[in-house]
Amino acid sequence: MPAPTLFVIHGPNLNLLGVREPHIYGTTTLAEIDEELARRGQKLGVQVVSFQSNIEGELVTQVQRARGTAQGILINPGGYTHTSVAIRDAIEAAEVPAVEVHLSNLHRREPFRRRSFVAGVCLAQVAGFGAASYYVALDGLCAHLRSKGLLS
Amino acid sequence: MPAPTLFVIHGPNLNLLGVREPHIYGTTTLAEIDEELARRGQKLGVQVVSFQSNIEGELVTQVQRARGTAQGILINPGGYTHTSVAIRDAIEAAEVPAVEVHLSNLHRREPFRRRSFVAGVCLAQVAGFGAASYYVALDGLCAHLRSKGLLS
Amino acid sequence: MPAPTLFVIHGPNLNLLGVREPHIYGTTTLAEIDEELARRGQKLGVQVVSFQSNIEGELVTQVQRARGTAQGILINPGGYTHTSVAIRDAIEAAEVPAVEVHLSNLHRREPFRRRSFVAGVCLAQVAGFGAASYYVALDGLCAHLRSKGLLS
Amino acid sequence: MPAPTLFVIHGPNLNLLGVREPHIYGTTTLAEIDEELARRGQKLGVQVVSFQSNIEGELVTQVQRARGTAQGILINPGGYTHTSVAIRDAIEAAEVPAVEVHLSNLHRREPFRRRSFVAGVCLAQVAGFGAASYYVALDGLCAHLRSKGLLS
Amino acid sequence: MPAPTLFVIHGPNLNLLGVREPHIYGTTTLAEIDEELARRGQKLGVQVVSFQSNIEGELVTQVQRARGTAQGILINPGGYTHTSVAIRDAIEAAEVPAVEVHLSNLHRREPFRRRSFVAGVCLAQVAGFGAASYYVALDGLCAHLRSKGLLS
Amino acid sequence: MPAPTLFVIHGPNLNLLGVREPHIYGTTTLAEIDEELARRGQKLGVQVVSFQSNIEGELVTQVQRARGTAQGILINPGGYTHTSVAIRDAIEAAEVPAVEVHLSNLHRREPFRRRSFVAGVCLAQVAGFGAASYYVALDGLCAHLRSKGLLS
Amino acid sequence: MPAPTLFVIHGPNLNLLGVREPHIYGTTTLAEIDEELARRGQKLGVQVVSFQSNIEGELVTQVQRARGTAQGILINPGGYTHTSVAIRDAIEAAEVPAVEVHLSNLHRREPFRRRSFVAGVCLAQVAGFGAASYYVALDGLCAHLRSKGLLS
Amino acid sequence: MPAPTLFVIHGPNLNLLGVREPHIYGTTTLAEIDEELARRGQKLGVQVVSFQSNIEGELVTQVQRARGTAQGILINPGGYTHTSVAIRDAIEAAEVPAVEVHLSNLHRREPFRRRSFVAGVCLAQVAGFGAASYYVALDGLCAHLRSKGLLS
Amino acid sequence: MPAPTLFVIHGPNLNLLGVREPHIYGTTTLAEIDEELARRGQKLGVQVVSFQSNIEGELVTQVQRARGTAQGILINPGGYTHTSVAIRDAIEAAEVPAVEVHLSNLHRREPFRRRSFVAGVCLAQVAGFGAASYYVALDGLCAHLRSKGLLS
Amino acid sequence: MPAPTLFVIHGPNLNLLGVREPHIYGTTTLAEIDEELARRGQKLGVQVVSFQSNIEGELVTQVQRARGTAQGILINPGGYTHTSVAIRDAIEAAEVPAVEVHLSNLHRREPFRRRSFVAGVCLAQVAGFGAASYYVALDGLCAHLRSKGLLS
Amino acid sequence: MPAPTLFVIHGPNLNLLGVREPHIYGTTTLAEIDEELARRGQKLGVQVVSFQSNIEGELVTQVQRARGTAQGILINPGGYTHTSVAIRDAIEAAEVPAVEVHLSNLHRREPFRRRSFVAGVCLAQVAGFGAASYYVALDGLCAHLRSKGLLS
Amino acid sequence: MPAPTLFVIHGPNLNLLGVREPHIYGTTTLAEIDEELARRGQKLGVQVVSFQSNIEGELVTQVQRARGTAQGILINPGGYTHTSVAIRDAIEAAEVPAVEVHLSNLHRREPFRRRSFVAGVCLAQVAGFGAASYYVALDGLCAHLRSKGLLS
Repeated sequence: MPAPTLFVIHGPNLNLLGVREPHIYGTTTLAEIDEELARRGQKLGVQVVSFQSNIEGELVTQVQRARGTAQGILINPGGYTHTSVAIRDAIEAAEVPAVEVHLSNLHRREPFRRRSFVAGVCLAQVAGFGAASYYVALDGLCAHLRSKGLLS
Repeated sequence: MPAPTLFVIHGPNLNLLGVREPHIYGTTTLAEIDEELARRGQKLGVQVVSFQSNIEGELVTQVQRARGTAQGILINPGGYTHTSVAIRDAIEAAEVPAVEVHLSNLHRREPFRRRSFVAGVCLAQVAGFGAASYYVALDGLCAHLRSKGLLS
Repeated sequence: MPAPTLFVIHGPNLNLLGVREPHIYGTTTLAEIDEELARRGQKLGVQVVSFQSNIEGELVTQVQRARGTAQGILINPGGYTHTSVAIRDAIEAAEVPAVEVHLSNLHRREPFRRRSFVAGVCLAQVAGFGAASYYVALDGLCAHLRSKGLLS
Repeated sequence: MPAPTLFVIHGPNLNLLGVREPHIYGTTTLAEIDEELARRGQKLGVQVVSFQSNIEGELVTQVQRARGTAQGILINPGGYTHTSVAIRDAIEAAEVPAVEVHLSNLHRREPFRRRSFVAGVCLAQVAGFGAASYYVALDGLCAHLRSKGLLS
Repeated sequence: MPAPTLFVIHGPNLNLLGVREPHIYGTTTLAEIDEELARRGQKLGVQVVSFQSNIEGELVTQVQRARGTAQGILINPGGYTHTSVAIRDAIEAAEVPAVEVHLSNLHRREPFRRRSFVAGVCLAQVAGFGAASYYVALDGLCAHLRSKGLLS
Repeated sequence: MPAPTLFVIHGPNLNLLGVREPHIYGTTTLAEIDEELARRGQKLGVQVVSFQSNIEGELVTQVQRARGTAQGILINPGGYTHTSVAIRDAIEAAEVPAVEVHLSNLHRREPFRRRSFVAGVCLAQVAGFGAASYYVALDGLCAHLRSKGLLS
Repeated sequence: MPAPTLFVIHGPNLNLLGVREPHIYGTTTLAEIDEELARRGQKLGVQVVSFQSNIEGELVTQVQRARGTAQGILINPGGYTHTSVAIRDAIEAAEVPAVEVHLSNLHRREPFRRRSFVAGVCLAQVAGFGAASYYVALDGLCAHLRSKGLLS
Repeated sequence: MPAPTLFVIHGPNLNLLGVREPHIYGTTTLAEIDEELARRGQKLGVQVVSFQSNIEGELVTQVQRARGTAQGILINPGGYTHTSVAIRDAIEAAEVPAVEVHLSNLHRREPFRRRSFVAGVCLAQVAGFGAASYYVALDGLCAHLRSKGLLS
Repeated sequence: MPAPTLFVIHGPNLNLLGVREPHIYGTTTLAEIDEELARRGQKLGVQVVSFQSNIEGELVTQVQRARGTAQGILINPGGYTHTSVAIRDAIEAAEVPAVEVHLSNLHRREPFRRRSFVAGVCLAQVAGFGAASYYVALDGLCAHLRSKGLLS
Repeated sequence: MPAPTLFVIHGPNLNLLGVREPHIYGTTTLAEIDEELARRGQKLGVQVVSFQSNIEGELVTQVQRARGTAQGILINPGGYTHTSVAIRDAIEAAEVPAVEVHLSNLHRREPFRRRSFVAGVCLAQVAGFGAASYYVALDGLCAHLRSKGLLS
Repeated sequence: MPAPTLFVIHGPNLNLLGVREPHIYGTTTLAEIDEELARRGQKLGVQVVSFQSNIEGELVTQVQRARGTAQGILINPGGYTHTSVAIRDAIEAAEVPAVEVHLSNLHRREPFRRRSFVAGVCLAQVAGFGAASYYVALDGLCAHLRSKGLLS
Repeated sequence: MPAPTLFVIHGPNLNLLGVREPHIYGTTTLAEIDEELARRGQKLGVQVVSFQSNIEGELVTQVQRARGTAQGILINPGGYTHTSVAIRDAIEAAEVPAVEVHLSNLHRREPFRRRSFVAGVCLAQVAGFGAASYYVALDGLCAHLRSKGLLS
């Protein structure tokens, strides 16, 4: 069984990570998170491919690419979480399990952040651990793949 | 009277047509629909120009181009139907009749799909016939143009 | 295969068509629409049977009659669109495909016209083409019957 | 100038007037109200034609008849006030001034009685004077007709 | 004490019972239910008179007839349950105890079926036992009449 | 029996009547309306005392004065109709029958004009007849007083 | 076939029955109701086991015990009807048919009593017959068990 | 540094785990989860103390006990998630970091399950991984404690 | 330490106290309440200054005067409680502790009385004790001043 | 006249008073409040009996015990204020006057704390004075009992 | 062309400017703002007349005076922004362009401050610049007058 | 002190300015506005850099660039005003003062244009002066910078 590929997809403003409002989001940069995910992925037997864009349609296209290429998705849609039906539709069309990831606990912020368009089509959610949200989501997604016999 | 031009504008995820969830959307691909529209257009005496993008702003730009170039628009805004004021504004600014098209009956799906931002600035809607939604919309739009003396 | 029968069912105030507010609804009368539908039906290989009533319960009864008699329904429930659960139940009980038809684009009128009780049990919707809404709905319904092998 | 005709249209359950809950609606019967309206109409120079039905569609039909026959309508739609888009559409199509009449003050009863579908297409409202609501509404409608030169 | 009369009033689409969607409503026909109610009524010492109509206004009229004629009402208003203020007003005017009956558990169906306009003026509700809903409602209504000394 | 006194209370901006937006409110001035009310009152056997203020609290005080002084109130609270609990409380405390009057049909204007805080404590409403709204309201209030034996 | 066991579960404040507000709930005590249910159960061929608690979690536990022990549940959750997701979950987990019972017609009381969390997971509802609500619910549940072949 | 203590608190119906609706919740029992958590805790250097109750107030008391005794809480409040302000207040008073855990993705179930009273006072949420939700939540909470220097 | 001054501010219609609806508000007049407050204030070591107006803007001005003059406010805004942002702003600007007082329990009256614009900027609320609401509020405010060392 | 008994009932988390978030709730413990209430009760001629529980159903039971035992209730339902219909029903059934007490001003906290299920069945409310809320509520309740001749 | 007159109208609590909450509103007094507006007006060729009141009705009257006297209005309705239909009606009746001015950004404060009754009848809004909001609004209004040829 | 840089960011469809619906937006083109802003900026001592895109993500990126490059932002997000959380997040992350600009008064258009996602993170708003909205916003922003000592 070849190593499964997992897509990590970061939405708008996440390129500022480590710079923007560090008292909320911490000082780790996005590049550091992607490196850590790659390192952990190697141990878990999966290949992690990361991607970031501020443009909603480019995120849609990247989710579409997962179909037939990747076995799972970790996605943090940033501000598009609350407004994008297009990303939701792309996840549904991709037909691979997706996990919604957020750095902060959205329930502690503005009310409009409580509505997620993607939640209804994802396998699971992880939120509130800061950068570690990505790592525990990776663990959870791998556990899911193992339970399906897709990962040894 | 030269043959009028009609723009057909497809929104996000429609590039997956024929692949994504065929039990809902059927097996016809977007290319096949565009060919059929072109063929039918020729018979009806109109030139059909098709366009697809996953990026909201590119759809806005394409709608803007209709102004002074095309005599009508068939638009399936996909997931942006429910969230895009920008596309609505572009249709209003284009000042040519537009018909909103959907493959499936949106009222049989999630509640958030019942709100359309573009409906209020379109001439008409067609939904629920699968790929045939585009064809009957084309017929309806041509009938409208004939009633205005813009098509013989 | 004998010619399928399609019911055309017009709701309240549609008997005034061609008279009432012609700037919104045009000058075609209901009788002219019914004749045109019959003529088009003949070409398409279906028999069209039309009916109008201002009384909700009589519309319910006519929809019930479709069961075992007709292979499809075109229904414009007029003002009952927004208030009748009884017609909805009748359509569901009739177990033949129904298409909801409206002359005008309801999204451009009062907010209460945006809610349709019948939309959720219909195959498709056509709205906004004036009298031509009925014709394109007939085409769409016949295309559906052909795809099911119910019409040659 | 011949005497204008005014339609008085009573909705469901008003046939029970004088019998049903007299502590709310008084002991005057509907026939007595109609006689008094005829008598007052004669003095004011108008002919009053009264009609009652429990059936929504028959009320729609009677409102339609006003078009070209009557110069004004007094209508108490009873329970249909709060649920009938069809009667609203008929009043709009009739294109004669209509006055909405209620025996009781609807704001002192259940909350759902505060919504009126017909109010938006009527000239005026009178409510809360018991049987006298009809009489003062008749005066108001005649004053309106006089101001338009339709009544001497 | 002569045998009290009870009205059983069935609303729209109930004439299809035993035919329409038997997986939800069972195979018993309305005639069979009415016969069973008559038979059980005889045992309980009451006379049962049944009525069905698809027309809201005819249901209003039948409820009005109960006044002075019947000592109680079993009513299943079907789709009008959720939309009819007119039937509500008639029940209130009839001034005899009424029991609202439904075959299915409305809370397991569409959200709009949870609102009942008649519930607030009825004595009691029974729902969800299929045809047996009518029978246990009959028992309950007779128990009520006995507790009031209206049935021996 | 001495002639009863009726208070006529006009709210904010009604001092502009005949000047402000005559296409909506007509050209009759407030003084002319008050004179006509006085003249009609004399015929009906009541004394009419008129009052206008732009200040909510002065309207409250005038309503309070009705207690023990007047036998009825005609009140057009203008813009305070939709926002004043204080005037509502004053009407309730005055313990004399009050009729709410509006020149225009509020249901044809902005949605926030459909809510009236005073409607629930008034005897009746008249709206939509222009200046004649006051006159038919006066008739209705006198009819009410006569039915209570307070006016001969 | 051994006699099936039915659980009767009474929620908070029902221990006060016959004492608390007898003008609403009658003078029958809970013990008397339980005795009558046992007596009627014996006739119908079922064993009735009754339980009351003011504590939500103890009601949850008793519903859980039904699993594998009882063949049906009559439950009157009292005030928890409107607030308890935990009892709803327990009923769903118990996997035996449950009937929701209320002494009074909840639609005649405060608006918050119209929402039931348990209704969506129950087979049926009976409300408004006073103590007799329990007895006719027992009949209905036994009829259901007979129709499933679980009771002779 | 002594091993920190973590409280694991399970709400109503979780005692049925492995039995109740295994197609949703899987076949692992609560005892097995608690054992696995203990085993994993030992490796991570923390002591795990588990507790389950169906009674809201006992959960409140257990959360209170965490104050001064435990360094963190994993809590799955079951059905009380959506209704309990009391548990929320207890978590806030405990002043130790708490992680909200759910087996299933609540966004894929009934709408009322989307509201969580405890989310606003928790550090983080994990949902949708089945039994593994607890394990990744344990990992995340330990990562948090390490980042605070409370765990080596 | 000189005796602190407390402002007592009464809103619209409270001048009618003892006269208006005594079955709700009792027979004590406002003058009697003010005298009793003065007498109790003397005992508690504070000087009580009372004020009443029906005019919202005069209440605003009186609240403003408290700034620098008084050490606390007892305010019963009457009907303005539910509609006045201006009084709320004045209380906030006054920067002295204010207690909201109501004679009756607002939760037992119309729903619109449950919203208070001033509650969010007051220290505390007292409602439902009739005239005694003022007296216990005075006690509470003095207790607060003592806890801050502003009253001996 | 023997000394009346008053029940003081404290809800969930109040056992932590003086410990939990002292910047909001102060440093006084619940035992100190109960002692102070007993001392003040003795002076006022009443016997004060205090009770605390975290369990909703035990609070229900304690409220029930007031019936026939106590002449009044001071109740701070804590977090159950906003969610418990069961406690509301118990207060109504107890048929003794109850006063709702809160330490803090709920209008300055989260929006969900503004809804109280018990307010509608209590005599009065006191909130925002910290521990002194209990003391002034005790004064108010005694004043009420004196006005009813139940306390000398 | 004589110098146009512009009215500057300040609502409740603005008389406290420079005193009240300077961290939000700054230390400039209202008199200083009015002087600065006069000075700037002179340069721009307009005469500025300022007015302040805490009383809603006096603001209504001042707005009315603008009709025929002034060519434009700068209005900061303070707390009445969110509650006054009367001021809205006065602006509409005045028939001169009005600009709504606010010192602070209302979207950063309480939710009820987001609704403005006057916005819909004003030409423009300026908010958030502190005292400078008035100055840029004056510039904008003069630019508008010049574009209409009303200012040279 | 070098001249501060201000970003002017125009959203979708603003490239059509001067062409699209000139009766609403005027005939000035976007290029002309940008030139005028540059000219005025030079006088005020700031450098103005303009940017337009129809693509939401490109606007996000341009706002991000302001961080460390510009001292302020004028932004007209066009149709994205009402739907973009991503632009809101970018403004918050940029940490420079931003002023929201609109050509027309949004309160006079469709209801969905009243909601602004960016308003809550901007310093101020200017709307309704047509092209002049940009100029007075520039003045206001410079005044703000001067008050902070960032502009001489």
